[in-house]
Amino acid sequence: MTTTEATTTALPEGYIIRRMEKQDYEGVVDTLAVLTTVGNVSKKKFDSIIDYWNSNEFEYRGSKVNLYNPHVIVDTIKNEIAATGNIIIEQKLIHDCGLCGHIEDIAVSSNHQGKKLGKCLIEKLRNVGFQAGCYKVILDCDEKNTMFYEKCKFKRAGVEMQSRL
Amino acid sequence: MTTTEATTTALPEGYIIRRMEKQDYEGVVDTLAVLTTVGNVSKKKFDSIIDYWNSNEFEYRGSKVNLYNPHVIVDTIKNEIAATGNIIIEQKLIHDCGLCGHIEDIAVSSNHQGKKLGKCLIEKLRNVGFQAGCYKVILDCDEKNTMFYEKCKFKRAGVEMQSRL
Ligand SMILES: CC(C)(COP(=O)(O)OP(=O)(O)OC[C@H]1O[C@@H](n2cnc3c(N)ncnc32)[C@H](O)[C@@H]1OP(=O)(O)O)[C@@H](O)C(=O)NCCC(=O)NCCS
Ligand SMILES: CC(C)(COP(=O)(O)OP(=O)(O)OC[C@H]1O[C@@H](n2cnc3c(N)ncnc32)[C@H](O)[C@@H]1OP(=O)(O)O)[C@@H](O)C(=O)NCCC(=O)NCCS
Repeated sequence: MTTTEATTTALPEGYIIRRMEKQDYEGVVDTLAVLTTVGNVSKKKFDSIIDYWNSNEFEYRGSKVNLYNPHVIVDTIKNEIAATGNIIIEQKLIHDCGLCGHIEDIAVSSNHQGKKLGKCLIEKLRNVGFQAGCYKVILDCDEKNTMFYEKCKFKRAGVEMQSRL
Repeated sequence: MTTTEATTTALPEGYIIRRMEKQDYEGVVDTLAVLTTVGNVSKKKFDSIIDYWNSNEFEYRGSKVNLYNPHVIVDTIKNEIAATGNIIIEQKLIHDCGLCGHIEDIAVSSNHQGKKLGKCLIEKLRNVGFQAGCYKVILDCDEKNTMFYEKCKFKRAGVEMQSRL
């Protein structure tokens, strides 16, 4: 296989993947805590961000595209959020006014790690990006996670540089 | 100096920096060609992207923020575009529902390189990000450009991974 789009890892039995919803509040906040500081996210604030994310649509070559595409993997047996991630779709001028997908904030809850949920999530988000029309999908990660992303068919492309106040 | 926000390199005489406008069409398309393939960007397409970028506002902690912030440096003597770049402001859940700035598509026209325009542009875009409330501003670059971004007070933070169709 030389293409990246064809393979889709199957989710383990009992898990589903879908767009994030307001009812996912607690599970998403808990799951993101494996990644970094989540801080003070009230239910009201969460709901307003979901509304904003859902409303931010644009047109690209005759189709509607969501700029934000937050997803969750749900363990339907335990009825809990097992993983979350987002893909932001950027409208550029370069590459024929092309789209670039940015995968952000990937987290698999600790008691669900190692079951291919991370891989399924990345494949799903990448597909969302390519279906929208992205010419590439990128993400930034720690050196220690590059092997995981290589298993998801991503390749090293450059250096992430950062500035903080 | 240990802070990153205070220093602002002065633009050389005759240059100004401002938000991108529809009248910048030809100069922007020419300038972006130093970076990568621009392709077939008609004036009509350019104008519609400027309209879309200008319209994409959201509210963050009581203030209006532009999601897209495309800028140009203009040589007002020759009346031409000398440099261009953008910063996209992403609404996250992590970090207290914080904002992350993504600097994209930095290009300095070849006959204007080496005059600190690149540095001024990066400082300006970073300030736009921090003034909007970003807790960090990031960008991806080639290994060969890391020294330029280090001179702009950015630090290495991670690895950019990419997937293409
Ligand atoms: C890193 C993370 C997203 C991986 O998700 P996961 O569901 O545990 O991983 P998967 O089961 O889908 O792994 C897929 C493959 O990658 C491998 N893999 C997973 N994590 C890896 C790592 N850190 N290093 C090397 N390989 C890794 C797995 O062994 C598996 O390989 P296989 O297909 O040969 O069996 C998840 O563990 C996580 O959220 N960790 C904490 C937060 C974090 O670091 N997020 C990423 C920020 S960049
Ligand atoms: C890379 C680029 C943005 C730099 O802009 P510039 O206006 O030419 O650079 P500046 O004059 O602002 O340089 C600021 C400092 O960085 C240094 N610098 C610039 N480019 C450098 C490079 N590639 N490697 C190392 N140092 C570099 C300069 O020498 C200067 O140092 P000083 O302050 O000690 O004198 C510009 O040359 C360019 O657009 N190149 C082609 C497209 C490209 O590669 N874009 C970046 C994609 S990641």
